[in-house]
Amino acid sequence: MKIVFLFYEGMTALDAIGPHEILSRLPGASVFRVAERAGLIQTDSSQLILIADYSLADVKNADVVLVPGAGNATALSDHPETLQWLKSIHTTTTWTTSVCTGSLILGAAGILSNLKATTHWAAFDRLKLWKAIPTKARVVEDGKVITAAGVSAGIDMALILSSKIAGEKFAQAIQLGIEYDPDPPFDVGSPEKADPVIREGLRSRMTANFVKVPCEFSS
Amino acid sequence: MKIVFLFYEGMTALDAIGPHEILSRLPGASVFRVAERAGLIQTDSSQLILIADYSLADVKNADVVLVPGAGNATALSDHPETLQWLKSIHTTTTWTTSVCTGSLILGAAGILSNLKATTHWAAFDRLKLWKAIPTKARVVEDGKVITAAGVSAGIDMALILSSKIAGEKFAQAIQLGIEYDPDPPFDVGSPEKADPVIREGLRSRMTANFVKVPCEFSS
Repeated sequence: MKIVFLFYEGMTALDAIGPHEILSRLPGASVFRVAERAGLIQTDSSQLILIADYSLADVKNADVVLVPGAGNATALSDHPETLQWLKSIHTTTTWTTSVCTGSLILGAAGILSNLKATTHWAAFDRLKLWKAIPTKARVVEDGKVITAAGVSAGIDMALILSSKIAGEKFAQAIQLGIEYDPDPPFDVGSPEKADPVIREGLRSRMTANFVKVPCEFSS
Repeated sequence: MKIVFLFYEGMTALDAIGPHEILSRLPGASVFRVAERAGLIQTDSSQLILIADYSLADVKNADVVLVPGAGNATALSDHPETLQWLKSIHTTTTWTTSVCTGSLILGAAGILSNLKATTHWAAFDRLKLWKAIPTKARVVEDGKVITAAGVSAGIDMALILSSKIAGEKFAQAIQLGIEYDPDPPFDVGSPEKADPVIREGLRSRMTANFVKVPCEFSS
């Protein structure tokens, strides 16, 4: 069970580490952390640094690929080498997955064309740039492609994926192992539930960071 | 707002990275990742490596300290230097916090004596080793000490703490920013809700990893 996480400069740490904590507990899991070049990867989370153990050229196939998102929404849209790698490894996977705006990277690699997908709520409309079918749900499956909503949704997605890979009982054991019985202090975690003033303030701060011009790379 | 994460060999990555994603978004947050010695830190999550930017001696005070847990429950019980550092920095904090079995490290440092506290459900009884008052809740506050239950409970704890530090509206914006509107695939995330066969199997696998002899360090 070869599970490949794509790491890149500016990625959001929890997008990757939530699912990583879950998927690495699957039976026989062999986890590969891959980036354009192996080495130190600066996240967008207060200078936290992660390490990619492999460069793209070292990893050519996978059972599962996971692409995390980034605060600037399409951090990799001008990295054709990574997009080409994604497009290519996607042909070998059983599951191709993303968290948050990672779906926009799948989109830029031409993987979401005519597929239902989700992303962080503030970037939702940008799915159309890549001819995806924007679908409002925390986790969206279309064939072998599973996309999750913003940041923390990767935890739910990874548990669902674990259930598909190893069965419900194993997924339940992982869920109990990480004591995932969430109890958020506020019921405001999705845009429909949030205070509109908070939501629109956050939306305008977040979209100001988004990369303005999508790249021309397509399938 | 000086927020200090204690990193150490064998720590569970998500215990730290969940709260890190939240607390690093606080206004004026300055985040320090500290370990016995600065450098590469091997987690217990499939060889994932994190980086500690500072050694213990570099960081002597904090507004918030957070201690993550580890699969072997008391990874640091034989590290008197770290325990002494914790005991000392605790006297400077506004909030001293832990996730999962991180509370047993607080305990080993003598910080939990006669305080209500929680930990990962499978390690719950071990709180008594350190004269804490084991308290069944996802997040337990006693004075300035806040302990969270297993792994994913750190996310709830960090949002509650954010609310105390920056107010409810700010905490709500962080919660919406990470789209934390959890939807676990199964309702089995706590020991009371789980299938007893899964729970007891997991308990015996986990407790087999626990460090057998608590250290003699005490307050």
